[in-house]
Amino acid sequence: MATELNADPGLRFPTGLGTSDRDSISLLGQDLAADLMGKVGFGELAFWLVAGRRPTKGEVRVFEAVLVALADHGFTPTAIAARLTYLSAPDSLQGAMAAGLLGGGSRFLGVTEDTGVFLAAALSSSTSPDVGQLARHVIASTPGRIPGLGHPVHKVQDPRTPVLIGIAKEEGLYGPHLELLEAIAAVHEKKLPLNGAGVCGAALADLGLPVEMLRGFALLARAAGLLGQIAEERRRPIANQIYMTVDRNAVYEA
Amino acid sequence: MATELNADPGLRFPTGLGTSDRDSISLLGQDLAADLMGKVGFGELAFWLVAGRRPTKGEVRVFEAVLVALADHGFTPTAIAARLTYLSAPDSLQGAMAAGLLGGGSRFLGVTEDTGVFLAAALSSSTSPDVGQLARHVIASTPGRIPGLGHPVHKVQDPRTPVLIGIAKEEGLYGPHLELLEAIAAVHEKKLPLNGAGVCGAALADLGLPVEMLRGFALLARAAGLLGQIAEERRRPIANQIYMTVDRNAVYEA
Amino acid sequence: MATELNADPGLRFPTGLGTSDRDSISLLGQDLAADLMGKVGFGELAFWLVAGRRPTKGEVRVFEAVLVALADHGFTPTAIAARLTYLSAPDSLQGAMAAGLLGGGSRFLGVTEDTGVFLAAALSSSTSPDVGQLARHVIASTPGRIPGLGHPVHKVQDPRTPVLIGIAKEEGLYGPHLELLEAIAAVHEKKLPLNGAGVCGAALADLGLPVEMLRGFALLARAAGLLGQIAEERRRPIANQIYMTVDRNAVYEA
Amino acid sequence: MATELNADPGLRFPTGLGTSDRDSISLLGQDLAADLMGKVGFGELAFWLVAGRRPTKGEVRVFEAVLVALADHGFTPTAIAARLTYLSAPDSLQGAMAAGLLGGGSRFLGVTEDTGVFLAAALSSSTSPDVGQLARHVIASTPGRIPGLGHPVHKVQDPRTPVLIGIAKEEGLYGPHLELLEAIAAVHEKKLPLNGAGVCGAALADLGLPVEMLRGFALLARAAGLLGQIAEERRRPIANQIYMTVDRNAVYEA
Repeated sequence: MATELNADPGLRFPTGLGTSDRDSISLLGQDLAADLMGKVGFGELAFWLVAGRRPTKGEVRVFEAVLVALADHGFTPTAIAARLTYLSAPDSLQGAMAAGLLGGGSRFLGVTEDTGVFLAAALSSSTSPDVGQLARHVIASTPGRIPGLGHPVHKVQDPRTPVLIGIAKEEGLYGPHLELLEAIAAVHEKKLPLNGAGVCGAALADLGLPVEMLRGFALLARAAGLLGQIAEERRRPIANQIYMTVDRNAVYEA
Repeated sequence: MATELNADPGLRFPTGLGTSDRDSISLLGQDLAADLMGKVGFGELAFWLVAGRRPTKGEVRVFEAVLVALADHGFTPTAIAARLTYLSAPDSLQGAMAAGLLGGGSRFLGVTEDTGVFLAAALSSSTSPDVGQLARHVIASTPGRIPGLGHPVHKVQDPRTPVLIGIAKEEGLYGPHLELLEAIAAVHEKKLPLNGAGVCGAALADLGLPVEMLRGFALLARAAGLLGQIAEERRRPIANQIYMTVDRNAVYEA
Repeated sequence: MATELNADPGLRFPTGLGTSDRDSISLLGQDLAADLMGKVGFGELAFWLVAGRRPTKGEVRVFEAVLVALADHGFTPTAIAARLTYLSAPDSLQGAMAAGLLGGGSRFLGVTEDTGVFLAAALSSSTSPDVGQLARHVIASTPGRIPGLGHPVHKVQDPRTPVLIGIAKEEGLYGPHLELLEAIAAVHEKKLPLNGAGVCGAALADLGLPVEMLRGFALLARAAGLLGQIAEERRRPIANQIYMTVDRNAVYEA
Repeated sequence: MATELNADPGLRFPTGLGTSDRDSISLLGQDLAADLMGKVGFGELAFWLVAGRRPTKGEVRVFEAVLVALADHGFTPTAIAARLTYLSAPDSLQGAMAAGLLGGGSRFLGVTEDTGVFLAAALSSSTSPDVGQLARHVIASTPGRIPGLGHPVHKVQDPRTPVLIGIAKEEGLYGPHLELLEAIAAVHEKKLPLNGAGVCGAALADLGLPVEMLRGFALLARAAGLLGQIAEERRRPIANQIYMTVDRNAVYEA
């Protein structure tokens, strides 16, 4: 509530998101019921909530393509953790969702953010307009692995990569992050395929979204995937079989 | 991966969601890159993941209107918990998201699921086609509060209610759950307004979504809202002021 | 901080737990450094924090025996979920702990609380001093399973049961909850063994701890077990093998 | 279960923690019921679970003094987040506990681990036996803040510091980490007090516990404190007042 009624002197918590009073609900400065419901898509709203501006149609298409690309990757550690938690505490759907999201850290869901952050840093420190030169400089000055290059399963090509780049180009949203990432892959001696989740990070950065929040979009996408996993666990449970498989093959070793 | 290579005899984990091999990624039996990315919206995919069937355009519109309605309600306990967790552990965005979702339990986010479950039970036990009669019977046989009736703030009308019912009617998706809920409100002696979050539950139930999963959609919607809260906390922090407000007004009492 | 400095008029947050100012830290009305550190055990403090009173030596012994009994049960779903989360997000130990605790719901960790709550309700509604009669009445009036009776693995005897009952008797803390639980098992026609985790719930209730908090003690005990699981996962990882076992035996089925 | 019955060929999950079969439960290679319950304290077990060895009496005293020191610091962001989550989802105690622990990240609970890791690194790279010289070298070669030096509230002395150091000395467990930390404070030009939580990290490192797990002990300690916070919230709720204080002072700003 943003009513000033009963407000404490000296306390003031500003927000540009949701406020409400007896008769109305506002979100992002809009009338939620009159202006948003039925008129704004869910992906569009998520973009708006984070970026603080309404995306264009083309931006929504790229953004939702990314969310679709990241929603579910089958039996990942996060999906298994969510199913096991649901098995163990079926009364708390929110706990199973939360447990799944907690796996969205540096390793399994991290490549999207890592790639965006890496590219943004390279671009901001660059003084040359030549992307090929920048790509060679980035490779030379990066001691370890370059985020977004290579994939543990898709060793030749990640099928998401060309599709997402194509959509970004169609919508006129192919920008410096995607360009640099492609340039790096092109000149890199290992000829590694671009990781689709990394390409997602570059595409989100090209939309102007804050790179420190990119992991958050991967988490939002995964929230939908985890719902799917839990719904499937209800219909056709496997978590108990997973648990039993581990438990009956346990061996004591000091 | 769904490859049979290296598979253990006797172990078999079926899934209709994501699978992948070296060259392709499938989701819901579709080719993720070729058939879904750029062609399916994010809300549409979330519906499909849970329901196991692709929704129609009208269903997507109602569904996304619900997600938009539930995404953010300002400084709720869940939003505050997420911001405080982000203040305390800024290195773990997933922890702040998870902490926020964990408040999505019986009280603050529960009304959506409670209403859907309540209406579904009433409808499944009903033998009469007369919805007014069923509404009176439901009221007479429910000792406590009826889920979906009344709202702590919107005491005259929840602005989301008429809009969502209007959208459902426009799309030809106004079904027995919404009808029964409206009938209950109409004949109830207290003349309480319909809670918008409860109406969302009825609308989702009318879409044929499993009522035991309704809380999950509220959580998905809230995941977008929490992202917005965390992004705003980054730009314009208030969590430390909340913490300080509580801490400096702490009083020891045995 | 409990200082009144800068306090907001009208705001007042009472607590009997921790407060501090520039030179001192209080906890439970005691001077943390002078009176508690090195003088109070950790289990003793946990009891005190929840019960609001310092336990006796005998109470500490029973209480810690319960925590020891519940700390770790090997590769439970919660332990596996914590390990998978640690695999996926090794930068966030708190996320792995939280994911593990989130499985502490109605099914796997629930029996401790369920048994305590069940026995407390039976005792509070009882009018007879005859425990055998009450046990028969409880059995007759309970349609489903009685919490604390039976164990999926320990089908003859749960080894924790006689030990914990023995400790409670040694310390003079064998009270009405344990007595009723034993009486129920004695007269029940199925001759089921008492579940050790259920006996823990009865023993905690006999210590006068609030039965609505019993799940919390199981969670505290499990927090230590999860730390052990994560420490072992660091030394001798198995989470990736679990993930691979599930993933490579995934089979697509619509 | 460690039974070989029905085990899958090729699958093998070793563990030195809990295993069980029909008639017995083992933990850490001990018989849980016969050898641990009633004979091992809870803090002692937690140490054993992580370190893989049973601590001595003196080690238990230092270890439990640390856990007591870290259990609760009043209305921290983590305590407030746990209470708000409990308000919002009172049916899920595990969710409130988890939400509280998720704040145990780099900022509020991080100093214990940061200090231990920092000191361990300095000691392992040191070639000189002169601790004063090492302290000066550490200060000279550390560009930013030194973990464990200074406290936002206890600007003259953190009362936990001398007490914990005293206990460590009494038990003959004052080792190189505590010594180096004291030496750093002694020669540092800013004459900052030692942070008690940082001293805890040094003391745990002197016990030989793995420094990468130190955050975990802070989380275990905090789990007890969070239980206390939730139990108090049940008896004397304040979370709704916190929520209302924020909500009624919300102000819309684009």
